[in-house]
Amino acid sequence: SDLSPSNDQLSKFTRLRRLLTGEGTNFIMEAHNGLSAKIVEEAGFDGIWASGLSISAALGVRDNNELSWTQVLDVLEFMSDASSLPILVDGDTGYGNFNNFRRLVKKLCQRQIAGVCIEDKVFPKTNSFLADNQQLAEIDEFCGKIKAGKDTQPDDDFSIVARIEALIAGRGIDEALRRAEAYAEAGADAIVIHSKKSDPDEILTFCRSWDHRIPVVLIPTKYYRTPTQTMKDARASLIIWANHNLRASIQAMRDTCATLMRDETLVDVEAAVAPLNDVFTLADASELEEAEKVYLAGGPQVEAVVLAA
Amino acid sequence: SDLSPSNDQLSKFTRLRRLLTGEGTNFIMEAHNGLSAKIVEEAGFDGIWASGLSISAALGVRDNNELSWTQVLDVLEFMSDASSLPILVDGDTGYGNFNNFRRLVKKLCQRQIAGVCIEDKVFPKTNSFLADNQQLAEIDEFCGKIKAGKDTQPDDDFSIVARIEALIAGRGIDEALRRAEAYAEAGADAIVIHSKKSDPDEILTFCRSWDHRIPVVLIPTKYYRTPTQTMKDARASLIIWANHNLRASIQAMRDTCATLMRDETLVDVEAAVAPLNDVFTLADASELEEAEKVYLAGGPQVEAVVLAA
Amino acid sequence: SDLSPSNDQLSKFTRLRRLLTGEGTNFIMEAHNGLSAKIVEEAGFDGIWASGLSISAALGVRDNNELSWTQVLDVLEFMSDASSLPILVDGDTGYGNFNNFRRLVKKLCQRQIAGVCIEDKVFPKTNSFLADNQQLAEIDEFCGKIKAGKDTQPDDDFSIVARIEALIAGRGIDEALRRAEAYAEAGADAIVIHSKKSDPDEILTFCRSWDHRIPVVLIPTKYYRTPTQTMKDARASLIIWANHNLRASIQAMRDTCATLMRDETLVDVEAAVAPLNDVFTLADASELEEAEKVYLAGGPQVEAVVLAA
Amino acid sequence: SDLSPSNDQLSKFTRLRRLLTGEGTNFIMEAHNGLSAKIVEEAGFDGIWASGLSISAALGVRDNNELSWTQVLDVLEFMSDASSLPILVDGDTGYGNFNNFRRLVKKLCQRQIAGVCIEDKVFPKTNSFLADNQQLAEIDEFCGKIKAGKDTQPDDDFSIVARIEALIAGRGIDEALRRAEAYAEAGADAIVIHSKKSDPDEILTFCRSWDHRIPVVLIPTKYYRTPTQTMKDARASLIIWANHNLRASIQAMRDTCATLMRDETLVDVEAAVAPLNDVFTLADASELEEAEKVYLAGGPQVEAVVLAA
Repeated sequence: SDLSPSNDQLSKFTRLRRLLTGEGTNFIMEAHNGLSAKIVEEAGFDGIWASGLSISAALGVRDNNELSWTQVLDVLEFMSDASSLPILVDGDTGYGNFNNFRRLVKKLCQRQIAGVCIEDKVFPKTNSFLADNQQLAEIDEFCGKIKAGKDTQPDDDFSIVARIEALIAGRGIDEALRRAEAYAEAGADAIVIHSKKSDPDEILTFCRSWDHRIPVVLIPTKYYRTPTQTMKDARASLIIWANHNLRASIQAMRDTCATLMRDETLVDVEAAVAPLNDVFTLADASELEEAEKVYLAGGPQVEAVVLAA
Repeated sequence: SDLSPSNDQLSKFTRLRRLLTGEGTNFIMEAHNGLSAKIVEEAGFDGIWASGLSISAALGVRDNNELSWTQVLDVLEFMSDASSLPILVDGDTGYGNFNNFRRLVKKLCQRQIAGVCIEDKVFPKTNSFLADNQQLAEIDEFCGKIKAGKDTQPDDDFSIVARIEALIAGRGIDEALRRAEAYAEAGADAIVIHSKKSDPDEILTFCRSWDHRIPVVLIPTKYYRTPTQTMKDARASLIIWANHNLRASIQAMRDTCATLMRDETLVDVEAAVAPLNDVFTLADASELEEAEKVYLAGGPQVEAVVLAA
Repeated sequence: SDLSPSNDQLSKFTRLRRLLTGEGTNFIMEAHNGLSAKIVEEAGFDGIWASGLSISAALGVRDNNELSWTQVLDVLEFMSDASSLPILVDGDTGYGNFNNFRRLVKKLCQRQIAGVCIEDKVFPKTNSFLADNQQLAEIDEFCGKIKAGKDTQPDDDFSIVARIEALIAGRGIDEALRRAEAYAEAGADAIVIHSKKSDPDEILTFCRSWDHRIPVVLIPTKYYRTPTQTMKDARASLIIWANHNLRASIQAMRDTCATLMRDETLVDVEAAVAPLNDVFTLADASELEEAEKVYLAGGPQVEAVVLAA
Repeated sequence: SDLSPSNDQLSKFTRLRRLLTGEGTNFIMEAHNGLSAKIVEEAGFDGIWASGLSISAALGVRDNNELSWTQVLDVLEFMSDASSLPILVDGDTGYGNFNNFRRLVKKLCQRQIAGVCIEDKVFPKTNSFLADNQQLAEIDEFCGKIKAGKDTQPDDDFSIVARIEALIAGRGIDEALRRAEAYAEAGADAIVIHSKKSDPDEILTFCRSWDHRIPVVLIPTKYYRTPTQTMKDARASLIIWANHNLRASIQAMRDTCATLMRDETLVDVEAAVAPLNDVFTLADASELEEAEKVYLAGGPQVEAVVLAA
């Protein structure tokens, strides 16, 4: 209604929660630094997926917890400052046990990160698309972690999403369902059911059995050919385009580097890349220019009055 | 009255503001890391002075902006997390121009640092007790910085304290008063009038002329023999014990190292230092022990329910 | 000769120095994080330009020293670890005075950054392509900074490149030459003569007068239409493609985001971006896979021998 | 002989190695930040123990890997820069698996940290003096970690010390010996045998059986009454005074805070703490003063020569 707060007035926490729990299927887009976060917002998305794979890759390291959790936090802080969109962060396994996760949750909330997704594997993690021998966390241990996070979060609308790796580990749909149930009981606000197969069958079967008891998030990186309508029909609440800004960058930088190596001139590159001025616009250079007028001269009301001592 | 919020229910921002603007004279004590912040709180103080000199010295560098502003921020975050007391941070010159200061203010508020003191010198600063040729900032430039900070602060009760270095620079009381007036006009919540003389005369003369137009903060490091009643009579709102935890540590560590070098045994050291167990108590080890009971086993209400698929 | 060390055996420091002082004209390519550093190396370039503008923009902030110098250092460390190429870093004004610059030089060498370029402006800087009222550093002050850096560098082959902003500030070629001479006297290993005009005339005039007394570096971002042969004829030692990986990324991410917003499916995106597997290849996932075989099992020679106690 | 390099000319790596492998029993003293590292050096010690407990406590957090490994690294970098002494760092369990440890080793060497001690527990660790149910690492897994570290270290004289927690975990001397043997086989440069008993019997029994196959390090925090001669007789190569600078600081800060709370004046505090000037001396303020004379004016040889254009 007209009296309900507009989306812009809601906190980042509340906006992510609504993306997870609202009607229909929403989409969020990967970003891995402040710049890509701005571009996701510029394009009109409602939220950002801070991908662990992309953040690691952008910094030049592996998606195996080679980054410390505070190095990840530093990236997230730049992203949160750069965009008004709610961010759901890929928090791997929570970077340790329940206590490490409690600390993470506090720091995420402090940086206005709207939610975290943790997966039921062991620290240090291996990317889900690598290795066949993925070791799953004990269900009780992982439930304790979820519960600790929920008990710790200073903002009620912060979201904790539990990512189920049972299908990744080849443990089957029953195990996935058993875990989904336990994680929902432990307080998870949503689940991710993840798969590395190009065929979405196991995902869709899971969704039918799960029947949306709590919201489901899908990451169709491998089963990208699946029509979006199919995922909507499976009642996915949120679909994540999980690493495509990173991969777009890789392709573009490779092309640009190759051209410059070959031609040794910028002539043909200039038109293929974003204008220089857009770099300044994306950083909101004009705001600073305006501010300099106000503050560098001290501003009108800041007249130094000589005091009659 | 019984209905007014108790001190504990007020934000750190509001509590520092009240220390600055309330009746009478308050005292805050230096800390330079999370541990010393805890000890200040344990002793019963109402607030913490995060000294730039002490923080630099603790990390092993000089008080000449050898630390980057984010390295200082990292220390402050640990301090803020370690103590429920409001922290007034020694922000040097604001680490650059008004724009650097705006960024600092945002980050301090995010970390729940209750206020910042900036001094009217140029970046990089020199400690006020060193060098005779201290260069002062232009008044208009410094007023612009204060104003930018006030316009930026997300919490209304965040405090910006303007530190006047005119006496330090040998520029006299009239210059000090002229600057105090300008900084008050620009929006400063309080001023520090600083001196490196052991005699408090110039400080007391300033205070009489200033007549408490906005609150005055004193740092009697050099004029430490001045009776506190004299500073109260001069209507100081806040007195800062500015570096004595650091200096106490230096003395104690020197003594302990000397004993161990000489004796090559802990026998005589054990009784002279805090018990090992106090290290654990200060870190609140028992909270974690309790939490492990709740979360490591998953907790009673987190029974994994087998789903009838 | 066959006995001279191959390029791969030389330190990063020596390799950058040779790019600056060798015969002919060399080219280095911008990178702004570990990933882009890898891509520059993959493409076959001999060195990397760690652009201040690009690093700031990638993190989502302005090129006005909004980042602290240690935040920049953190980015550089990832870049240096990610690539075997020598890196020349855009060090703005050195982040303060000669003492701040000394600290920077030590830390850059520690991270194996091969050289630093500093510009003769004042902290905090404004990007050279913005603002018409750029304030230049005093010549003596800037020479002191160069000299302090040279006296501090722990590796003899670390390079300090002095960037002359006289043309940017509209101060003319004579001022630029006067500064070039002074900076060379102070010990600079090379100079950058910078311009924001699309016409290279002032650059070429400078180069003729300067006559290669010490090597000259050019950054043809604005005068990108200038044929490379013209710059070679002007005896440029090094040409920097200064921000084109960043700008390529911006364009590609915008395109990808637009497609996904419009189509709500990955089908048409998959082929346009780098394959997922390339993300793992760029991170050298196979090295870790091999290492796991050696170290996760303890390795063959690590047989636990029961000790006869 | 006169021709052998003096201790000052040896690398930090070599000096720590000699402390571990030389004749007789050496002593190193705990430090937890740059300041305490300077004080340890000032007192005449030959090396520094960078205690995990002390570093955590100084920052205000628990000794349960609440700090990320890069936060610890930041502290170590300040310590290494502040002191010329070799530092042996308490590296907990290596902050993850062999791959995390490999990264740690590289970064420690880059920061000139001379060696690391890792303990055979699981991440996240619990302090050895807390909890009775300490979980030990699998021997093979821990040996793989040691081996990975040794294969990775860029300096041959970097030391990896394996800390055996079998006695802490109540697993007995045979288990401790079995582990010592395996860790020595895996390449450890020395072992720590650790105990939380006030009676040194189990330590001494172990030492007799072990018979110095590789050097033994002792940490008599709990069995502090044991005469040093007894530990020398047990052929301890290195004895660590593990947390006494921290504990001395706690005591001193508590005393100082209590006095200031009670008396509200510095009069009686001034003489009890280190002189203010010592803070500047410890930071080597005079070096900067001298450098300013050389570099702030540009220095004598930096005369700006007007170029005849």
